[in-house]
Amino acid sequence: MFVKNVWYIAAFDKEFEQPFVARRLLDVPVIMFRTSDGVLAALDDLCPHRLMPLSSGKRIDDELQCGYHGMKFSAEGHCTCVPGQANIPSAATVKTYPLVSRHGFAWIWMGDPSLASPDLIPDIHWHDSPDWACSDGYHHFNANYRLLNDNLLDLSHETYVHHRTIGNHEELSIANYPATVTTEADCIVRAHREMSNIEAPPFFAMVLQPKGLINRWQIAVNLVPSLNITVVGVYPVEEERASAFAAHVLHLLTPESETSTHYFWSFVRNYRLNEIELTNGIQKASAATFDEDKIIIERQQKEIDARGKQVPGVAIRVDEAPIRARRLLEQRLKAEQENPAYVVAPPTLVPEHSYAVL
Amino acid sequence: MFVKNVWYIAAFDKEFEQPFVARRLLDVPVIMFRTSDGVLAALDDLCPHRLMPLSSGKRIDDELQCGYHGMKFSAEGHCTCVPGQANIPSAATVKTYPLVSRHGFAWIWMGDPSLASPDLIPDIHWHDSPDWACSDGYHHFNANYRLLNDNLLDLSHETYVHHRTIGNHEELSIANYPATVTTEADCIVRAHREMSNIEAPPFFAMVLQPKGLINRWQIAVNLVPSLNITVVGVYPVEEERASAFAAHVLHLLTPESETSTHYFWSFVRNYRLNEIELTNGIQKASAATFDEDKIIIERQQKEIDARGKQVPGVAIRVDEAPIRARRLLEQRLKAEQENPAYVVAPPTLVPEHSYAVL
Amino acid sequence: MFVKNVWYIAAFDKEFEQPFVARRLLDVPVIMFRTSDGVLAALDDLCPHRLMPLSSGKRIDDELQCGYHGMKFSAEGHCTCVPGQANIPSAATVKTYPLVSRHGFAWIWMGDPSLASPDLIPDIHWHDSPDWACSDGYHHFNANYRLLNDNLLDLSHETYVHHRTIGNHEELSIANYPATVTTEADCIVRAHREMSNIEAPPFFAMVLQPKGLINRWQIAVNLVPSLNITVVGVYPVEEERASAFAAHVLHLLTPESETSTHYFWSFVRNYRLNEIELTNGIQKASAATFDEDKIIIERQQKEIDARGKQVPGVAIRVDEAPIRARRLLEQRLKAEQENPAYVVAPPTLVPEHSYAVL
Repeated sequence: MFVKNVWYIAAFDKEFEQPFVARRLLDVPVIMFRTSDGVLAALDDLCPHRLMPLSSGKRIDDELQCGYHGMKFSAEGHCTCVPGQANIPSAATVKTYPLVSRHGFAWIWMGDPSLASPDLIPDIHWHDSPDWACSDGYHHFNANYRLLNDNLLDLSHETYVHHRTIGNHEELSIANYPATVTTEADCIVRAHREMSNIEAPPFFAMVLQPKGLINRWQIAVNLVPSLNITVVGVYPVEEERASAFAAHVLHLLTPESETSTHYFWSFVRNYRLNEIELTNGIQKASAATFDEDKIIIERQQKEIDARGKQVPGVAIRVDEAPIRARRLLEQRLKAEQENPAYVVAPPTLVPEHSYAVL
Repeated sequence: MFVKNVWYIAAFDKEFEQPFVARRLLDVPVIMFRTSDGVLAALDDLCPHRLMPLSSGKRIDDELQCGYHGMKFSAEGHCTCVPGQANIPSAATVKTYPLVSRHGFAWIWMGDPSLASPDLIPDIHWHDSPDWACSDGYHHFNANYRLLNDNLLDLSHETYVHHRTIGNHEELSIANYPATVTTEADCIVRAHREMSNIEAPPFFAMVLQPKGLINRWQIAVNLVPSLNITVVGVYPVEEERASAFAAHVLHLLTPESETSTHYFWSFVRNYRLNEIELTNGIQKASAATFDEDKIIIERQQKEIDARGKQVPGVAIRVDEAPIRARRLLEQRLKAEQENPAYVVAPPTLVPEHSYAVL
Repeated sequence: MFVKNVWYIAAFDKEFEQPFVARRLLDVPVIMFRTSDGVLAALDDLCPHRLMPLSSGKRIDDELQCGYHGMKFSAEGHCTCVPGQANIPSAATVKTYPLVSRHGFAWIWMGDPSLASPDLIPDIHWHDSPDWACSDGYHHFNANYRLLNDNLLDLSHETYVHHRTIGNHEELSIANYPATVTTEADCIVRAHREMSNIEAPPFFAMVLQPKGLINRWQIAVNLVPSLNITVVGVYPVEEERASAFAAHVLHLLTPESETSTHYFWSFVRNYRLNEIELTNGIQKASAATFDEDKIIIERQQKEIDARGKQVPGVAIRVDEAPIRARRLLEQRLKAEQENPAYVVAPPTLVPEHSYAVL
């Protein structure tokens, strides 16, 4: 089940340099494009005549033409041409979805379109802010989005899954540092850890250069249903916290289906902004880290499917944040079922200078 | 569902140079061979002992031997040998099907064998007539045969699907030329179009050589359940209709299963009969054209399966012939269910010189 | 359905040189290892926390660590460590199975563990006896174990399936030599054939060197549910039976699932014990022979699945032993269902010197 009345990331803005983008979202095949006026359009990817996906046809100016019999549809989903006849059947329309550009992403609203206020788009402005440098990418996971939320809210797995990238040695397991978990406004869970005087894992050693001991913090933030941010900070123990290398890792999940997820991600930093080599290095290292998660999480989905069981099974302490977030999610799904007009305005997710308030 | 009491193409005659041909027809695995006396035989491709396909054994003289325990079966489906014992169990028989050679094809009857009169075989004599030159081939489509019928009865798709081969420019869309659709004898639908003074599409330009304006006609013929002929004629506008390049394209469909179809095809022409290079060129161009259809139609079947919907959805003018043919097909299926002895003698499909009567 | 209260081969002993062995047995994913004390352990291959297979984690000393959150489990299935917390949840346990080493194999008991007496392990001591030379291997078959039992109890198929290896010419079909079939102790079927004065098939010619006429015998033994032995003997007609080349071919089947089977095999001989080249030659020839069976039997399973039918269909004389064995198997399954404590002590399968008693 999916929360419907919420904005999901449908694409990076930059993808609209192509004539169109076709993507399954919440189990609906959607075709999206930017018109010559710069307006974003999203339609069901389906010709109502013979069920051909419009994406197997072509774009002509600001219209989509079916590749089988040549019917054309406007950005508003109206049929504008049926070859061989002058009149257009009234049923020849294609459903459209609100699609809005903000923070460098295209956001789609799959629920009741009358509720689709752009004010409900969460603030993740760091992604295209000049004060932050950005390394971004996309992963496809064959797993339900809940399993990715779980993973992102319990960073203790870094020690075991990511020992080659962002994890610590096992003797210094992240799980040993207790997380403070808080819930906010019925839609946000935060899990906050401080780790002092530790060795820098490989990824941070690359970024910080001096390979000595560091202080490190991390705050995992989850906004219902599937927007996650990892606020991370590290600095050499001999320096000041205010000089920390701070980063926000945006994990922007959009369900493709019940068992697959689009994972748009963006690692933004406040540090050495203009070093393109570093930007590229972070891009590669982040992709490698999410590759490690993909193996684990897809395997987990396979076991869930094969055994007909759900996770979590036996609960342990590190599950606190994931379990709280699942509870908020289920509440939201129920609220939306009971009241189809139910929407939630997302609060501020992270203060601009996260280290200042921690 | 399949019409059973009808002759379907099972193979090209020339395939019987091999020891046997194994093919699934109407969801039944069948093994076929030509005996040393030249008689065609068709049997269930299944040893009744342990369910091994006879086609995974071998042919010995005019018998089929199972590859597991060596039991042998005659062309009539009788067991002639059980290794290790003298007596043959009476249940050790294999079902047979009428299989007849005509017009260069082997025709099979999967319904009640007592009704299988060879007089019911449709006349498609052009395929092996000395007055016509033939380019033939086979395609396998992962789609229900109805979708292929639809496609063959609505040639307006040529403009969009076949613009590289037999289609016209969009401004000259075939859909702009109205089709006259007629129904005949409860089993034939014809859709007839005349297109005057048009540019020759690439395929016809290759055949006609002079690349000027042409007159063109096409008649799509469908015989229930799945035999289609496209009668095509083209001639330079400055010449006479009686001198036209005329061709019959035979699209002989046999259901493999509910979602796959054997597509035997043959392009026969009345023109430049002895030019082998032309024959080969038409063969290649036809295959390329059907490759284009295959992409569209298999995609359509996939969408039908994924969405649990049927086509047509919204109907447009060009659907007239496909809709009429589907109606005749459903009537025939119903008639056969109500009367298992229901058969239809196919009328003449096309006059010998189609241009003469048009 | 599987007989549960019985010892199945889970692995060769030698496989435990690896840190662990993971294998699906009777549709249960199991992880097995040998502790530093030499004790064999078998556990469900599943972390109870988040459903990750323990085999996708790692072995640390005599414990298994989950690769996701680092929980550790002992050979007894107890959780010994949860990173981030001192107390261990009582539900954090993993099911274990009796696993015992004998005759060079690890035997597992998937039924009621209180009944798992090692006295119930069948005697197949030849496999690691110094009086016998052994060539062994493993095949995976995508087929129900019953189809392999059938195949091993009816050796008449050698003529057709194995004509390149162990079969005779068709004129000398094995089926022509009648088999004497006997049943014993409600759990053993034997089918015994004597073939005198025949040509040596390629496999035996390789072993015996003189390529003249031989006397040959074979006894197929099946112990419910799926342990098979082929006792074979051959000697040149001019020599004495007591000098025969005797071999026991052990076909030790363990169901992986309803449609797949682990096939552990071992060819042991009493002859030219120290000739490594011969040992290797037999290994290769046996593997090639079972490759031939695999093609047939997997095809048979595919046809059974596709047609929703069971074998045998029409029964013939060579089916006598397979049918008797299937009957004993179904009786055993029924007995175990009616009495969950039902066990059977396996009788002696083969006398030490088989040729002496025949």
